[in-house]
Amino acid sequence: MGSKLKTENSKLRVGIFGGSGYGGAELLRILLFHPHAEVTLVTANEHAGKSVGEVHRNLHGLTDLVFAKAPDDLATLGDLDCIFLALPHGQALEIVPRLPQRAKVIDLSGDFRLQSADEFLQHYGREHTAMKLQREFVYGLTETNREAIAQARLIANPGCFATATFLGLAPLVSNKILSGRVVVDAKTGSSGSGAKAASNTHHPQRMTSFYAYKPFTHQHVPEIEQALRTIGDWTNELVFMTHSLPVARGIFASIYVETKSEMTTEDVHKIFADFYRDSFFVRLVKGSPDINWVKATNFCDIGFATRGRQLVVFSALDNLVKGAAGQAVQNMNVMCGIDEKTGLMFAGTNP
Amino acid sequence: MGSKLKTENSKLRVGIFGGSGYGGAELLRILLFHPHAEVTLVTANEHAGKSVGEVHRNLHGLTDLVFAKAPDDLATLGDLDCIFLALPHGQALEIVPRLPQRAKVIDLSGDFRLQSADEFLQHYGREHTAMKLQREFVYGLTETNREAIAQARLIANPGCFATATFLGLAPLVSNKILSGRVVVDAKTGSSGSGAKAASNTHHPQRMTSFYAYKPFTHQHVPEIEQALRTIGDWTNELVFMTHSLPVARGIFASIYVETKSEMTTEDVHKIFADFYRDSFFVRLVKGSPDINWVKATNFCDIGFATRGRQLVVFSALDNLVKGAAGQAVQNMNVMCGIDEKTGLMFAGTNP
Amino acid sequence: MGSKLKTENSKLRVGIFGGSGYGGAELLRILLFHPHAEVTLVTANEHAGKSVGEVHRNLHGLTDLVFAKAPDDLATLGDLDCIFLALPHGQALEIVPRLPQRAKVIDLSGDFRLQSADEFLQHYGREHTAMKLQREFVYGLTETNREAIAQARLIANPGCFATATFLGLAPLVSNKILSGRVVVDAKTGSSGSGAKAASNTHHPQRMTSFYAYKPFTHQHVPEIEQALRTIGDWTNELVFMTHSLPVARGIFASIYVETKSEMTTEDVHKIFADFYRDSFFVRLVKGSPDINWVKATNFCDIGFATRGRQLVVFSALDNLVKGAAGQAVQNMNVMCGIDEKTGLMFAGTNP
Amino acid sequence: MGSKLKTENSKLRVGIFGGSGYGGAELLRILLFHPHAEVTLVTANEHAGKSVGEVHRNLHGLTDLVFAKAPDDLATLGDLDCIFLALPHGQALEIVPRLPQRAKVIDLSGDFRLQSADEFLQHYGREHTAMKLQREFVYGLTETNREAIAQARLIANPGCFATATFLGLAPLVSNKILSGRVVVDAKTGSSGSGAKAASNTHHPQRMTSFYAYKPFTHQHVPEIEQALRTIGDWTNELVFMTHSLPVARGIFASIYVETKSEMTTEDVHKIFADFYRDSFFVRLVKGSPDINWVKATNFCDIGFATRGRQLVVFSALDNLVKGAAGQAVQNMNVMCGIDEKTGLMFAGTNP
Repeated sequence: MGSKLKTENSKLRVGIFGGSGYGGAELLRILLFHPHAEVTLVTANEHAGKSVGEVHRNLHGLTDLVFAKAPDDLATLGDLDCIFLALPHGQALEIVPRLPQRAKVIDLSGDFRLQSADEFLQHYGREHTAMKLQREFVYGLTETNREAIAQARLIANPGCFATATFLGLAPLVSNKILSGRVVVDAKTGSSGSGAKAASNTHHPQRMTSFYAYKPFTHQHVPEIEQALRTIGDWTNELVFMTHSLPVARGIFASIYVETKSEMTTEDVHKIFADFYRDSFFVRLVKGSPDINWVKATNFCDIGFATRGRQLVVFSALDNLVKGAAGQAVQNMNVMCGIDEKTGLMFAGTNP
Repeated sequence: MGSKLKTENSKLRVGIFGGSGYGGAELLRILLFHPHAEVTLVTANEHAGKSVGEVHRNLHGLTDLVFAKAPDDLATLGDLDCIFLALPHGQALEIVPRLPQRAKVIDLSGDFRLQSADEFLQHYGREHTAMKLQREFVYGLTETNREAIAQARLIANPGCFATATFLGLAPLVSNKILSGRVVVDAKTGSSGSGAKAASNTHHPQRMTSFYAYKPFTHQHVPEIEQALRTIGDWTNELVFMTHSLPVARGIFASIYVETKSEMTTEDVHKIFADFYRDSFFVRLVKGSPDINWVKATNFCDIGFATRGRQLVVFSALDNLVKGAAGQAVQNMNVMCGIDEKTGLMFAGTNP
Repeated sequence: MGSKLKTENSKLRVGIFGGSGYGGAELLRILLFHPHAEVTLVTANEHAGKSVGEVHRNLHGLTDLVFAKAPDDLATLGDLDCIFLALPHGQALEIVPRLPQRAKVIDLSGDFRLQSADEFLQHYGREHTAMKLQREFVYGLTETNREAIAQARLIANPGCFATATFLGLAPLVSNKILSGRVVVDAKTGSSGSGAKAASNTHHPQRMTSFYAYKPFTHQHVPEIEQALRTIGDWTNELVFMTHSLPVARGIFASIYVETKSEMTTEDVHKIFADFYRDSFFVRLVKGSPDINWVKATNFCDIGFATRGRQLVVFSALDNLVKGAAGQAVQNMNVMCGIDEKTGLMFAGTNP
Repeated sequence: MGSKLKTENSKLRVGIFGGSGYGGAELLRILLFHPHAEVTLVTANEHAGKSVGEVHRNLHGLTDLVFAKAPDDLATLGDLDCIFLALPHGQALEIVPRLPQRAKVIDLSGDFRLQSADEFLQHYGREHTAMKLQREFVYGLTETNREAIAQARLIANPGCFATATFLGLAPLVSNKILSGRVVVDAKTGSSGSGAKAASNTHHPQRMTSFYAYKPFTHQHVPEIEQALRTIGDWTNELVFMTHSLPVARGIFASIYVETKSEMTTEDVHKIFADFYRDSFFVRLVKGSPDINWVKATNFCDIGFATRGRQLVVFSALDNLVKGAAGQAVQNMNVMCGIDEKTGLMFAGTNP
């Protein structure tokens, strides 16, 4: 594994494709302060030549990096140890096959998550042109896939809704205690729509809005089910619904299940605590979590309530961190033999 | 019916108990412009002697009303045609028995909604001391109870969550098309917590929060089930979960059901359109409603999505209007033989 | 005056050009409930054929109006009594000359506000092509211009910042008590940027933003100064600064002046109370007003603080109502001999 | 200086009095990750015995600290190198005299900022009982007072408004280019009101509010003027006005001055760049800063606009960080001979 970190002082050379969106912005916010990484390339075609601090004004004064155009010949990127792709869906499909074999690659888009070409076509609206390469990708849900991630060269970083939902369901599926239909009522902040202004993120409306969208058809549904099948015998019906919250950051999933027998919250807590005993970034809380306490962090907070065989799991995370850039860096750490918390030990703010 | 409106020019004499909270504020906002009503008494013990426009600064310049102390001898209120009680839970219990028989009474609290003294004790934490009187109360869900309301002297005005949930479920229960467990994921704005500052409505936290509260135990659960049993053969399991939204106004309920056979959204639309054909304030929408479009109005907007036998009903209303003061005025109209839309024909704002 | 309202039952036939923006949306919200007006035409080229309630979902169920294309031959609009133009800057310039002479016209844009072609060019970035017609326009700041408005056929409806600032300064200028430089620190909600999504109204950023824009160069500066010169001997230096607030609605202007001699807040209150004694929509408040209490209303709330010769006037209004559509309807009322409050007697909400 | 940091591995032993408020919460968020500090005591009388992560849920999982009661005998705290007081105004007055002489003390309240007992009485409503000790305090505006801070044992940490205003005015006062009256229109987020719920921070109202408060009388006025007199010949009239913003974090000051001669923004930029050439945490920006880009950071962003002799300086910072806890840690670093950026190199988020 050529790019494994050799000494404490050597730094991983990191490249970011798509540095102008929110995923890229968060990668920069995290990686610029990562003790074992150095960002040596960040692309943003529409901002090429501009300084990073001019585009992401939160980073003004903190970096001298300048946005570059993505090079035509990607093979020239041979000196990079790790490449993050934070591009709109469909672009990684074109880029990954052309990247040098030497570099580890972490794709934050949905391009390489699904093992089924049919599901990809159905949910992403295009033919998958690199299904053979897809099979080399490892799904980067760090908490349940560390060993494969440690050996992987190519990582498909999970979706934000998928991460929140999967982390809330995995211990239950793994322990075979679910029965029947599972209802997931999921809500996301407006940054989930990306950095480009659009009518659904127009401030005068959004600040007083709450509504559902893409009912039954969100592209994270097949991703969630595929991931659950790797954990246990998932055959339940999944009703998954996405809603829009009038906040910038945060995903909250209310997961309604029936258990095979009656359970107390203590029973459930024990199952989750055991399942996540080595997972620093999953925090179990009493009662309900709150997106307010995970904003801008890599934590996923999980709480429960029970009544007889009815169980509700509440899962909360920041869509841009544990749901995107933070988990991507967590995966880089695992791939490179670094403590997975490195560079991710920041608290959220209060308030 | 002595207080029925006799001519177009006579006005109902209206009293409001509890004019300083949000329910009272909305009653004033509506009734001050109601063409057939005149507010002649509004109480707020802690503000007695202050002008209404000083306390509710939105009303400054629009009324000369002054807050009064609630009179010790309620029998003196014999000249009132209609009395609204917008008091904290537990106070109507003491007041209603002492009100003059002549006046119609609309209680916005939970004091007289439940027919079971046990459920009342369990959910409101006190013994019910007037169960005999409770039996004279009519449940004021206008859309399904107009005939009884028209004959009633005493109205128990429905809760905000109960209204949103009931309106989304009633056509399905009435048409006997539900099967199995019903999951209601309900969300409310911060005004649902009332006009008094509290830690859960502290702005620095609340503006970036979303969380669940009172899991499985919200006091509107027995109210919803009691109301559904009046509509059809309700025996389904109800999983009801309340969450807090970072907006001031609005309730959004995502109602997950299974239907006995497969249905399209058109099938569902037909059932709802038929059920609510005489109900101006229920608006059926394509796709999802949005609390943004019902804020400050008396509308309940309802939309649907289906997949096979899975059906989701989305119900959105303003907790302070259709969920409280607006529905109360709608009930006053029906009780007094006035068109139920009178005084309630205001649009929400855009944005 | 052919279009003066003849009887209580006849209704003004009203047309709205530009019904899809926020100005048009508010005109519809107000005029659909105006007792003496009937909207018979509303244009929105990009939505032609769609129902108004589909585009402005707050109006769903409240009107059967359908958006029309603006007719090529405007002379065909001879049956309209009053035409509102709520179009982007520059379009009224083309349209007004072609409108039938019979109709009263109220233009909400900046096209006909400035008497100086040079200032128009400088601030609106185009040559003024109808300066002769401009001279027929009356400036529609209702509170100080009622008599001229009552006689006018063409009204240039004031800008939102201009209205807030002018109403805060007019009594002082009229009473000749100012000395030296005037500093206006003005703030607006995001709806001031219009109904089209843009980067400065992108929700994830805007909800936590506050910043200044267009320093010293806002197009309302010459409008304010021109209006102040009609009131008194305005020769003071005006420093006018606009800022963006993270709310949808509201303008708040903090106006810093020096008075020729020391004044108490009571002195100032007396001057304002006298100046606005016939102006229902100007409310004087103790201490500071709050945009929260004028949102969605036609009120401008004004308060004061003094220290020796230092005086600060605080002026708050809703940019879309008193700052646009509300004032436009107020002007229509005055033009048509109707009580100026007609159709505008709605309170804001609490909360 | 016994407590100067001796080696890179030794850590300062730090105590925090008042760890439950927002100032204490931010101190913890920063100091828990400070490489050269270890929090060994944090008091919060009402939470004594509770874990820090239970009270500040953003810190859950990140620390094992438990809140303690403040000890009766403060002399027992002899092992602390640095003590932060983040208490309500008036408490430090009682505590500081009783603290061991050995520890450095940084007081975040207003208790020891003012050199005039009369001004203290007037603005804080109580007699100052320790004016002799006050004279030992050094004003902790790091950027202009580093040398004195480096030698100090006792620091009066500046107020949030004072920091924003002073940093915007200091280069101008120092360079003697101001003439006449200075108007400061300052706005703060809701966290400035503290962690306790109150009517002015009640979410349903605050989210749509903007208003002025404490006109002419804010307690930071004498603090600002006292600080400016240490920088230059400050005799100008200061008009200072505070307003409330509907965001959690951020102060924005619009500072209106007249310069003795005409200046361009480039002229002004040069003066500020020179004045702050060694001040990492002051960032000069083109045009206006935005509180969005400094939130949760220790930066103060400053921009300008000019017109002839009119100059507006815009100053933006996070009231809890550069305006409180961040500057306090910056001062600790300077006092202890550590690079002043240590532990403060975190970027704000985008969005």
